[in-house]
Amino acid sequence: MSLLITINGWDAAPWAAMFQRLAPGLPVHMALDARNRDAIRYAAVWKPKPGLLAQLPNLAVIFNLGAGVDAILADETIPADIPIVRGVEADLTARMVEWVALHVLFHHRQMPQYMAQQSKALWRPIFQPAASEVSVGIMGLGALGSACAESLKRLGFRVCGWSRTHKALEGVASYAGENGLDAFLGQTDILVCLLPLTAETTSILNRSLFRKLHRDGPLGGPIVINAGRGRQQIERDLIDSLNDGTLKGASLDVFEEEPLPPDSPLWHHPRVFITPHVAADSTPAAICEHIVQQIARLEAGQPIGPLVDRQRGY
Amino acid sequence: MSLLITINGWDAAPWAAMFQRLAPGLPVHMALDARNRDAIRYAAVWKPKPGLLAQLPNLAVIFNLGAGVDAILADETIPADIPIVRGVEADLTARMVEWVALHVLFHHRQMPQYMAQQSKALWRPIFQPAASEVSVGIMGLGALGSACAESLKRLGFRVCGWSRTHKALEGVASYAGENGLDAFLGQTDILVCLLPLTAETTSILNRSLFRKLHRDGPLGGPIVINAGRGRQQIERDLIDSLNDGTLKGASLDVFEEEPLPPDSPLWHHPRVFITPHVAADSTPAAICEHIVQQIARLEAGQPIGPLVDRQRGY
Repeated sequence: MSLLITINGWDAAPWAAMFQRLAPGLPVHMALDARNRDAIRYAAVWKPKPGLLAQLPNLAVIFNLGAGVDAILADETIPADIPIVRGVEADLTARMVEWVALHVLFHHRQMPQYMAQQSKALWRPIFQPAASEVSVGIMGLGALGSACAESLKRLGFRVCGWSRTHKALEGVASYAGENGLDAFLGQTDILVCLLPLTAETTSILNRSLFRKLHRDGPLGGPIVINAGRGRQQIERDLIDSLNDGTLKGASLDVFEEEPLPPDSPLWHHPRVFITPHVAADSTPAAICEHIVQQIARLEAGQPIGPLVDRQRGY
Repeated sequence: MSLLITINGWDAAPWAAMFQRLAPGLPVHMALDARNRDAIRYAAVWKPKPGLLAQLPNLAVIFNLGAGVDAILADETIPADIPIVRGVEADLTARMVEWVALHVLFHHRQMPQYMAQQSKALWRPIFQPAASEVSVGIMGLGALGSACAESLKRLGFRVCGWSRTHKALEGVASYAGENGLDAFLGQTDILVCLLPLTAETTSILNRSLFRKLHRDGPLGGPIVINAGRGRQQIERDLIDSLNDGTLKGASLDVFEEEPLPPDSPLWHHPRVFITPHVAADSTPAAICEHIVQQIARLEAGQPIGPLVDRQRGY
């Protein structure tokens, strides 16, 4: 009855320390070996090595340490009946809401232009539409997207959403599927992508999509904000669309290749704002607390969550 | 029964056009002369020339076109019994909330550092505290300050407030007057100034105050955000405090002298972010609608507002 922590791309030590603090009775392993493989019942993972989890005969649950589960689902050796719990909890959601609100407001309130003016010591007010004249379109209305929609609505923006199936959120116009995409894009001034990475959403942020965004909006051109997954965007298309005026600006937290290579032209584009995949960085404290709670629920025979739907892909 | 529009520092034409659209039956004068002075009952003003309003024998109400009334109160020739209506209404408040939320999030989410890293093509996540670990202290809890407190609370920040008298806002620790100032400052990581300009608040943002802000906060140094009035800040002290580490960063919408002179060192300070007094720019549409409503109420014998308290100074 022990926990395996397997993490790629992050430092694993603070996670181990946090589990030991929150659940001192739970044995924790940092690597799989012949002596512990039978005892491991829980795995807390981030981008686990393909094939690793399939070696655990008594694995009962996989806990993902972040929001996106694409790395786990890509590993076809993992038995289909093992439940996967996503790392979405209150702290992670709150951080994503902060990041999205910040970048929507940053472009809405013309900070790129004001910073350019500041560098020239130029005092020049710029026409500012009210938030109620600006439409933010959110792709993906799951736990993160719904929370962002709520926050942006409260700030006064018009908010619409696009997702796989229709979602009923008060005050948010809902569009769904292939058929709803063009109508959604046609009214969107600021596009926020929070989609999970699936076959359908790979490369979805491309030139053809950018050209369908609202062209005559009050901000002088559409904005793209991506905090979903890097493989959802075609970076060459993004740069071309910024350069020919199809897009006015972009804020990106995710990239086709991460870390973003030093020679990517995105780094030095004056209308692109980059954060290094930190929009909703999981902190050990909040995520581990959620996992420890779910383990206690499981051992008490109670349902756990939030569970990944493998068919859906998230 | 006519309206005089007198505006200094802004273009008056859109205001006249808006009044004519919203109240076509209301005669509007753009200048005072011997023929119209007796007919003028209402004045819509921004920084009116001292002595001008005192020449109107039948003036019943002064409508201020922005939030700050310091320019009107400085004109001692205006009869003390003429009510002054402030330009605070929903649109202006919403814009201030946007600007304050943007700049609080901008510093909280380390955008100055991420932009500096971006300029060097540097991919490096920075430790990010949760909003619940960061305390935003708002100076001034009037209509604008209360709305900002509410918005920041919803984003998850700890919020405290300081004002002339105690204010009861749910979830906002309230401090008041001289006696409450040090305790308020000692817990504030991000200071937001939304105070009206009075004798007491002139030069209040000075070195001695900056040194009392929370020193060991999770952001690595206190932030100052001023959307109140420029004469509340000592700009020399701000720069010295940024340079010696007393402050980590600042966002400023107002300045001792406006427009900010081209040779001000604030323009090129790497941790100062400047907007040209546009945080809550009044738009003719929203402000004029409020004024036209108040005129209708007055003519129907109903109370009008929000009224300035001249003793208080705002």
